[in-house]
Amino acid sequence: MPKISEEQRAERIDRILAGARRCFAQYGYEGATVARLEEEIGLSRGAIFNWFPSKEELFVELARRDNHRLLSLFADEGFEALVRAVTEEDADWLAVYLEFGRRLRADPDFRQQWQERAAPGVRERVHSLLQAGQAEGSVRDDLTVDQLGRFLGLVVDGIVVQRGMGFDPPDADAVVVLAEDAIAPRGARRRRAQRKASSAA
Amino acid sequence: MPKISEEQRAERIDRILAGARRCFAQYGYEGATVARLEEEIGLSRGAIFNWFPSKEELFVELARRDNHRLLSLFADEGFEALVRAVTEEDADWLAVYLEFGRRLRADPDFRQQWQERAAPGVRERVHSLLQAGQAEGSVRDDLTVDQLGRFLGLVVDGIVVQRGMGFDPPDADAVVVLAEDAIAPRGARRRRAQRKASSAA
Repeated sequence: MPKISEEQRAERIDRILAGARRCFAQYGYEGATVARLEEEIGLSRGAIFNWFPSKEELFVELARRDNHRLLSLFADEGFEALVRAVTEEDADWLAVYLEFGRRLRADPDFRQQWQERAAPGVRERVHSLLQAGQAEGSVRDDLTVDQLGRFLGLVVDGIVVQRGMGFDPPDADAVVVLAEDAIAPRGARRRRAQRKASSAA
Repeated sequence: MPKISEEQRAERIDRILAGARRCFAQYGYEGATVARLEEEIGLSRGAIFNWFPSKEELFVELARRDNHRLLSLFADEGFEALVRAVTEEDADWLAVYLEFGRRLRADPDFRQQWQERAAPGVRERVHSLLQAGQAEGSVRDDLTVDQLGRFLGLVVDGIVVQRGMGFDPPDADAVVVLAEDAIAPRGARRRRAQRKASSAA
Protein backbone atom coordinates (compact mmCIF):
# COMPACT_ATOMS: atom_id res chain seq x y z
CA MET A 1 0.00 0.00 0.00
CA PRO A 2 1.49 3.39 -0.99
CA LYS A 3 2.19 5.89 1.74
CA ILE A 4 -0.45 8.57 2.09
CA SER A 5 -0.28 11.95 3.75
CA GLU A 6 -1.88 12.69 7.10
CA GLU A 7 -4.44 14.79 5.26
CA GLN A 8 -5.33 11.97 2.88
CA ARG A 9 -5.60 9.64 5.85
CA ALA A 10 -8.03 11.94 7.65
CA GLU A 11 -10.09 12.39 4.47
CA ARG A 12 -10.30 8.66 3.97
CA ILE A 13 -11.42 8.07 7.55
CA ASP A 14 -13.99 10.87 7.36
CA ARG A 15 -15.37 9.39 4.14
CA ILE A 16 -15.66 5.94 5.68
CA LEU A 17 -17.36 7.27 8.80
CA ALA A 18 -19.80 9.49 6.89
CA GLY A 19 -20.86 6.56 4.71
CA ALA A 20 -21.13 4.22 7.67
CA ARG A 21 -23.30 6.73 9.52
CA ARG A 22 -25.70 6.97 6.56
CA CYS A 23 -25.74 3.20 6.26
CA PHE A 24 -26.45 2.61 9.97
CA ALA A 25 -29.16 5.30 9.94
CA GLN A 26 -30.84 3.77 6.90
CA TYR A 27 -30.62 0.05 7.70
CA GLY A 28 -30.03 -0.05 11.45
CA TYR A 29 -26.98 -1.54 13.13
CA GLU A 30 -27.84 -5.17 12.39
CA GLY A 31 -29.12 -4.36 8.92
CA ALA A 32 -25.93 -2.54 7.91
CA THR A 33 -24.27 -5.53 6.26
CA VAL A 34 -20.74 -5.40 4.91
CA ALA A 35 -22.16 -5.30 1.37
CA ARG A 36 -24.34 -2.30 2.23
CA LEU A 37 -21.44 -0.56 3.99
CA GLU A 38 -19.30 -1.05 0.86
CA GLU A 39 -22.03 0.38 -1.33
CA GLU A 40 -22.78 3.40 0.85
CA ILE A 41 -19.11 4.22 1.52
CA GLY A 42 -18.04 3.47 -2.05
CA LEU A 43 -14.98 1.47 -0.99
CA SER A 44 -14.23 -2.23 -0.83
CA ARG A 45 -14.42 -4.10 2.45
CA GLY A 46 -10.63 -4.43 2.36
CA ALA A 47 -10.23 -0.65 2.13
CA ILE A 48 -12.82 -0.08 4.90
CA PHE A 49 -11.56 -2.70 7.32
CA ASN A 50 -8.01 -1.57 6.76
CA TRP A 51 -8.96 1.41 8.95
CA PHE A 52 -11.62 -0.14 11.17
CA PRO A 53 -11.18 -3.79 12.09
CA SER A 54 -14.93 -4.39 12.58
CA LYS A 55 -18.39 -2.93 12.17
CA GLU A 56 -18.43 -2.49 15.94
CA GLU A 57 -15.28 -0.36 15.79
CA LEU A 58 -16.89 1.76 13.10
CA PHE A 59 -19.95 2.38 15.25
CA VAL A 60 -17.90 3.07 18.38
CA GLU A 61 -15.83 5.68 16.54
CA LEU A 62 -19.02 7.37 15.28
CA ALA A 63 -20.47 7.37 18.79
CA ARG A 64 -17.19 8.67 20.21
CA ARG A 65 -17.25 11.58 17.75
CA ASP A 66 -20.92 12.33 18.58
CA ASN A 67 -20.10 12.28 22.26
CA HIS A 68 -17.13 14.58 21.77
CA ARG A 69 -19.09 16.99 19.57
CA LEU A 70 -22.05 17.19 21.95
CA LEU A 71 -20.01 17.56 25.13
CA SER A 72 -17.84 20.17 23.40
CA LEU A 73 -20.99 22.08 22.46
CA PHE A 74 -21.98 22.00 26.11
CA ALA A 75 -18.54 23.11 27.28
CA ASP A 76 -18.13 25.85 24.63
CA GLU A 77 -21.67 27.18 24.14
CA GLY A 78 -23.70 25.89 27.09
CA PHE A 79 -26.42 23.36 27.76
CA GLU A 80 -28.87 25.08 25.42
CA ALA A 81 -26.62 24.40 22.41
CA LEU A 82 -26.44 20.72 23.38
CA VAL A 83 -30.22 20.41 23.74
CA ARG A 84 -30.79 22.08 20.36
CA ALA A 85 -28.28 19.80 18.65
CA VAL A 86 -29.94 16.66 20.03
CA THR A 87 -33.42 17.98 19.26
CA GLU A 88 -32.39 18.56 15.63
CA GLU A 89 -30.25 15.42 15.17
CA ASP A 90 -31.28 12.91 12.50
CA ALA A 91 -33.76 10.63 14.27
CA ASP A 92 -32.79 7.65 12.07
CA TRP A 93 -29.30 7.92 13.41
CA LEU A 94 -30.47 8.29 17.02
CA ALA A 95 -32.50 5.09 16.58
CA VAL A 96 -29.25 3.18 16.00
CA TYR A 97 -28.23 4.00 19.57
CA LEU A 98 -31.28 2.18 20.86
CA GLU A 99 -30.40 -0.88 18.84
CA PHE A 100 -26.86 -0.73 20.09
CA GLY A 101 -27.95 -0.31 23.69
CA ARG A 102 -28.77 -3.97 24.14
CA ARG A 103 -25.31 -4.96 23.04
CA LEU A 104 -23.80 -2.51 25.54
CA ARG A 105 -25.80 -4.14 28.29
CA ALA A 106 -24.99 -7.69 27.24
CA ASP A 107 -21.24 -7.13 27.20
CA PRO A 108 -19.71 -5.55 30.35
CA ASP A 109 -16.18 -5.54 28.88
CA PHE A 110 -17.38 -3.69 25.86
CA ARG A 111 -19.31 -1.25 28.06
CA GLN A 112 -16.15 -0.55 30.02
CA GLN A 113 -14.22 0.07 26.81
CA TRP A 114 -17.05 2.29 25.57
CA GLN A 115 -16.98 4.43 28.69
CA GLU A 116 -13.22 4.78 28.56
CA ARG A 117 -13.12 5.71 24.90
CA ALA A 118 -16.04 8.11 25.09
CA ALA A 119 -14.66 11.61 24.90
CA PRO A 120 -11.65 11.54 27.21
CA GLY A 121 -11.09 15.00 28.63
CA VAL A 122 -14.37 16.51 27.47
CA ARG A 123 -16.36 15.11 30.37
CA GLU A 124 -13.78 16.69 32.63
CA ARG A 125 -14.27 20.01 30.84
CA VAL A 126 -18.00 19.86 31.53
CA HIS A 127 -17.32 19.05 35.17
CA SER A 128 -14.86 21.95 35.41
CA LEU A 129 -17.48 24.20 33.87
CA LEU A 130 -20.07 23.20 36.46
CA GLN A 131 -17.49 23.59 39.22
CA ALA A 132 -16.61 27.07 37.98
CA GLY A 133 -20.34 27.85 37.96
CA GLN A 134 -20.58 26.72 41.57
CA ALA A 135 -17.59 28.88 42.51
CA GLU A 136 -19.02 32.02 40.89
CA GLY A 137 -22.53 31.33 42.21
CA SER A 138 -24.31 30.60 38.91
CA VAL A 139 -24.73 26.86 39.66
CA ARG A 140 -26.18 25.39 42.84
CA ASP A 141 -23.58 23.92 45.20
CA ASP A 142 -25.80 21.82 47.47
CA LEU A 143 -25.32 18.90 45.04
CA THR A 144 -22.11 17.55 43.57
CA VAL A 145 -20.92 18.25 40.05
CA ASP A 146 -21.39 14.53 39.36
CA GLN A 147 -25.03 14.67 40.42
CA LEU A 148 -25.69 17.79 38.34
CA GLY A 149 -23.93 16.43 35.26
CA ARG A 150 -25.72 13.10 35.56
CA PHE A 151 -29.09 14.85 35.74
CA LEU A 152 -28.41 16.90 32.61
CA GLY A 153 -27.29 13.68 30.93
CA LEU A 154 -30.64 12.04 31.78
CA VAL A 155 -32.51 14.90 30.12
CA VAL A 156 -30.37 14.64 26.97
CA ASP A 157 -30.65 10.84 26.83
CA GLY A 158 -34.40 11.18 27.31
CA ILE A 159 -34.54 13.35 24.19
CA VAL A 160 -32.36 10.86 22.31
CA VAL A 161 -34.53 7.86 23.21
CA GLN A 162 -37.84 9.61 22.51
CA ARG A 163 -36.63 10.87 19.13
CA GLY A 164 -35.03 7.51 18.35
CA MET A 165 -38.44 5.92 18.96
CA GLY A 166 -39.99 8.33 16.50
CA PHE A 167 -41.85 10.64 18.88
CA ASP A 168 -41.96 14.38 18.25
CA PRO A 169 -39.06 16.32 19.73
CA PRO A 170 -39.90 18.23 22.91
CA ASP A 171 -40.03 22.02 23.00
CA ALA A 172 -36.31 22.79 23.29
CA ASP A 173 -36.91 26.22 24.87
CA ALA A 174 -38.95 24.71 27.71
CA VAL A 175 -36.44 21.90 28.26
CA VAL A 176 -33.59 24.39 28.52
CA VAL A 177 -35.45 26.66 30.96
CA LEU A 178 -36.40 23.70 33.18
CA ALA A 179 -32.96 22.09 33.15
CA GLU A 180 -31.19 25.38 33.81
CA ASP A 181 -33.58 26.22 36.63
CA ALA A 182 -32.96 22.77 38.13
CA ILE A 183 -29.23 23.42 38.43
CA ALA A 184 -29.49 27.14 39.20
CA PRO A 185 -28.83 28.35 42.73
CA ARG A 186 -31.68 29.75 44.76
CA GLY A 187 -32.85 33.09 43.39
CA ALA A 188 -31.22 32.71 39.99
CA ARG A 189 -34.46 31.88 38.26
CA ARG A 190 -35.90 35.22 39.09
CA ARG A 191 -33.06 36.94 37.27
CA ARG A 192 -33.59 34.90 34.13
CA ALA A 193 -37.35 35.26 34.27
CA GLN A 194 -36.91 39.05 34.42
CA ARG A 195 -34.45 38.97 31.55
CA LYS A 196 -36.86 36.87 29.53
CA ALA A 197 -39.76 39.16 30.32
CA SER A 198 -37.79 42.26 29.38
CA SER A 199 -36.54 40.75 26.11
CA ALA A 200 -40.13 39.80 25.24
CA ALA A 201 -41.35 43.31 25.99
CA MET B 1 -63.02 -24.51 25.30
CA PRO B 2 -64.89 -24.70 28.64
CA LYS B 3 -66.20 -21.50 30.13
CA ILE B 4 -63.98 -20.02 32.82
CA SER B 5 -64.73 -17.45 35.46
CA GLU B 6 -63.56 -13.86 35.26
CA GLU B 7 -61.12 -14.65 38.07
CA GLN B 8 -59.66 -17.64 36.20
CA ARG B 9 -59.41 -15.48 33.10
CA ALA B 10 -57.47 -12.78 34.95
CA GLU B 11 -55.18 -15.38 36.54
CA ARG B 12 -54.46 -16.95 33.19
CA ILE B 13 -53.63 -13.60 31.62
CA ASP B 14 -51.41 -12.61 34.56
CA ARG B 15 -49.55 -15.91 34.29
CA ILE B 16 -48.99 -15.47 30.56
CA LEU B 17 -47.80 -11.89 31.01
CA ALA B 18 -45.48 -12.71 33.92
CA GLY B 19 -43.85 -15.51 31.94
CA ALA B 20 -43.56 -13.38 28.81
CA ARG B 21 -41.91 -10.60 30.82
CA ARG B 22 -39.29 -13.02 32.18
CA CYS B 23 -38.75 -14.43 28.71
CA PHE B 24 -38.33 -11.00 27.06
CA ALA B 25 -36.00 -9.89 29.87
CA GLN B 26 -33.85 -12.99 29.51
CA TYR B 27 -33.68 -13.37 25.73
CA GLY B 28 -34.62 -9.92 24.44
CA TYR B 29 -37.56 -9.17 22.20
CA GLU B 30 -36.18 -10.84 19.08
CA GLY B 31 -34.70 -13.74 21.06
CA ALA B 32 -38.00 -14.54 22.78
CA THR B 33 -39.10 -17.21 20.31
CA VAL B 34 -42.48 -18.91 20.54
CA ALA B 35 -40.76 -22.05 21.87
CA ARG B 36 -39.07 -20.05 24.64
CA LEU B 37 -42.31 -18.24 25.46
CA GLU B 38 -44.06 -21.63 25.77
CA GLU B 39 -41.34 -22.92 28.06
CA GLU B 40 -41.20 -19.85 30.31
CA ILE B 41 -44.97 -19.44 30.55
CA GLY B 42 -45.62 -23.19 30.86
CA LEU B 43 -48.46 -23.18 28.35
CA SER B 44 -48.73 -24.24 24.73
CA ARG B 45 -48.65 -21.67 21.95
CA GLY B 46 -52.32 -22.35 21.34
CA ALA B 47 -53.17 -21.46 24.93
CA ILE B 48 -50.96 -18.36 24.85
CA PHE B 49 -52.08 -17.01 21.50
CA ASN B 50 -55.69 -17.66 22.41
CA TRP B 51 -55.32 -14.59 24.66
CA PHE B 52 -52.74 -12.60 22.74
CA PRO B 53 -52.80 -12.88 18.95
CA SER B 54 -49.07 -12.10 18.57
CA LYS B 55 -45.79 -11.61 20.39
CA GLU B 56 -46.17 -7.92 19.65
CA GLU B 57 -49.53 -7.83 21.41
CA LEU B 58 -47.95 -9.54 24.42
CA PHE B 59 -45.23 -6.93 24.61
CA VAL B 60 -47.61 -4.02 24.08
CA GLU B 61 -49.81 -5.25 26.94
CA LEU B 62 -46.77 -5.52 29.23
CA ALA B 63 -45.68 -2.02 28.26
CA ARG B 64 -49.20 -0.70 28.73
CA ARG B 65 -49.29 -2.15 32.27
CA ASP B 66 -45.85 -0.68 33.06
CA ASN B 67 -46.99 2.66 31.79
CA HIS B 68 -50.17 2.52 33.83
CA ARG B 69 -48.35 1.40 36.98
CA LEU B 70 -45.67 4.11 36.72
CA LEU B 71 -48.03 6.96 35.89
CA SER B 72 -50.34 5.82 38.70
CA LEU B 73 -47.39 5.92 41.09
CA PHE B 74 -46.73 9.46 39.97
CA ALA B 75 -50.39 10.46 40.33
CA ASP B 76 -50.89 8.72 43.70
CA GLU B 77 -47.52 9.12 45.43
CA GLY B 78 -45.65 11.77 43.49
CA PHE B 79 -42.70 12.00 41.14
CA GLU B 80 -40.28 10.63 43.72
CA ALA B 81 -42.12 7.27 43.81
CA LEU B 82 -41.93 7.07 40.02
CA VAL B 83 -38.19 7.81 39.96
CA ARG B 84 -37.52 5.20 42.64
CA ALA B 85 -39.54 2.57 40.79
CA VAL B 86 -37.63 3.14 37.55
CA THR B 87 -34.31 3.27 39.37
CA GLU B 88 -35.03 -0.11 40.94
CA GLU B 89 -36.71 -1.77 37.92
CA ASP B 90 -35.10 -4.92 36.48
CA ALA B 91 -32.52 -3.60 34.00
CA ASP B 92 -32.90 -6.68 31.77
CA TRP B 93 -36.52 -5.80 31.29
CA LEU B 94 -35.75 -2.13 30.62
CA ALA B 95 -33.30 -3.23 27.92
CA VAL B 96 -36.22 -4.77 26.00
CA TYR B 97 -37.66 -1.29 25.55
CA LEU B 98 -34.54 -0.22 23.72
CA GLU B 99 -34.83 -3.15 21.38
CA PHE B 100 -38.48 -2.40 20.82
CA GLY B 101 -37.78 1.28 20.20
CA ARG B 102 -36.53 0.73 16.68
CA ARG B 103 -39.73 -1.05 15.75
CA LEU B 104 -41.76 1.84 17.13
CA ARG B 105 -39.82 4.21 14.93
CA ALA B 106 -40.06 2.06 11.82
CA ASP B 107 -43.84 1.69 12.01
CA PRO B 108 -45.84 4.94 12.37
CA ASP B 109 -49.19 3.10 12.52
CA PHE B 110 -47.96 0.94 15.35
CA ARG B 111 -46.58 4.02 17.14
CA GLN B 112 -49.97 5.68 16.88
CA GLN B 113 -51.65 2.56 18.29
CA TRP B 114 -49.02 2.44 21.06
CA GLN B 115 -49.67 6.03 22.08
CA GLU B 116 -53.43 5.51 22.07
CA ARG B 117 -53.28 2.31 24.10
CA ALA B 118 -50.73 3.61 26.57
CA ALA B 119 -52.50 4.31 29.82
CA PRO B 120 -55.69 6.05 28.77
CA GLY B 121 -56.82 8.34 31.54
CA VAL B 122 -53.66 8.13 33.62
CA ARG B 123 -51.79 10.71 31.59
CA GLU B 124 -54.78 12.98 32.12
CA ARG B 125 -54.55 12.35 35.88
CA VAL B 126 -50.91 13.44 35.86
CA HIS B 127 -51.81 16.53 33.89
CA SER B 128 -54.63 17.32 36.32
CA LEU B 129 -52.19 16.89 39.18
CA LEU B 130 -49.75 19.36 37.65
CA GLN B 131 -52.61 21.75 36.92
CA ALA B 132 -53.81 21.51 40.51
CA GLY B 133 -50.22 22.21 41.61
CA GLN B 134 -50.18 25.30 39.44
CA ALA B 135 -53.49 26.47 40.88
CA GLU B 136 -52.33 26.06 44.48
CA GLY B 137 -48.91 27.56 43.75
CA SER B 138 -46.74 24.45 44.27
CA VAL B 139 -45.93 24.08 40.56
CA ARG B 140 -44.62 26.86 38.29
CA ASP B 141 -47.20 28.30 35.93
CA ASP B 142 -44.96 30.10 33.46
CA LEU B 143 -44.82 26.87 31.41
CA THR B 144 -47.69 24.65 30.27
CA VAL B 145 -48.62 21.38 31.94
CA ASP B 146 -47.61 19.67 28.68
CA GLN B 147 -44.13 21.18 28.83
CA LEU B 148 -43.70 20.25 32.48
CA GLY B 149 -44.96 16.69 32.00
CA ARG B 150 -42.82 16.21 28.93
CA PHE B 151 -39.72 17.34 30.84
CA LEU B 152 -40.36 14.92 33.70
CA GLY B 153 -40.90 12.22 31.08
CA LEU B 154 -37.47 12.97 29.57
CA VAL B 155 -35.83 12.50 32.96
CA VAL B 156 -37.61 9.16 33.51
CA ASP B 157 -36.84 7.93 29.99
CA GLY B 158 -33.22 8.97 30.50
CA ILE B 159 -33.06 6.68 33.55
CA VAL B 160 -34.73 3.87 31.57
CA VAL B 161 -32.28 4.11 28.67
CA GLN B 162 -29.17 4.41 30.85
CA ARG B 163 -30.20 1.44 32.97
CA GLY B 164 -31.27 -0.53 29.91
CA MET B 165 -27.77 0.02 28.52
CA GLY B 166 -26.31 -1.38 31.72
CA PHE B 167 -25.02 1.80 33.33
CA ASP B 168 -25.31 2.34 37.08
CA PRO B 169 -28.56 3.95 38.19
CA PRO B 170 -28.29 7.64 39.07
CA ASP B 171 -28.65 8.88 42.64
CA ALA B 172 -32.46 8.90 42.93
CA ASP B 173 -32.43 11.52 45.72
CA ALA B 174 -30.49 13.99 43.61
CA VAL B 175 -32.67 13.35 40.54
CA VAL B 176 -35.83 13.98 42.54
CA VAL B 177 -34.50 17.21 44.09
CA LEU B 178 -33.40 18.54 40.70
CA ALA B 179 -36.59 17.57 38.85
CA GLU B 180 -38.82 18.97 41.59
CA ASP B 181 -36.83 22.19 41.73
CA ALA B 182 -37.13 22.47 37.95
CA ILE B 183 -40.94 22.49 38.11
CA ALA B 184 -41.23 24.37 41.40
CA PRO B 185 -42.35 27.99 41.37
CA ARG B 186 -39.88 30.69 42.32
CA GLY B 187 -39.04 30.56 46.01
CA ALA B 188 -40.29 27.02 46.58
CA ARG B 189 -36.83 25.53 46.62
CA ARG B 190 -35.90 27.52 49.68
CA ARG B 191 -38.70 25.91 51.64
CA ARG B 192 -37.63 22.41 50.74
CA ALA B 193 -33.95 23.16 51.31
CA GLN B 194 -34.85 24.38 54.80
CA ARG B 195 -36.98 21.33 55.47
CA LYS B 196 -34.16 19.12 54.27
CA ALA B 197 -31.64 20.96 56.42
CA SER B 198 -33.84 20.72 59.52
CA SER B 199 -34.56 17.02 58.98
CA ALA B 200 -30.82 16.40 58.58
CA ALA B 201 -30.05 18.31 61.77
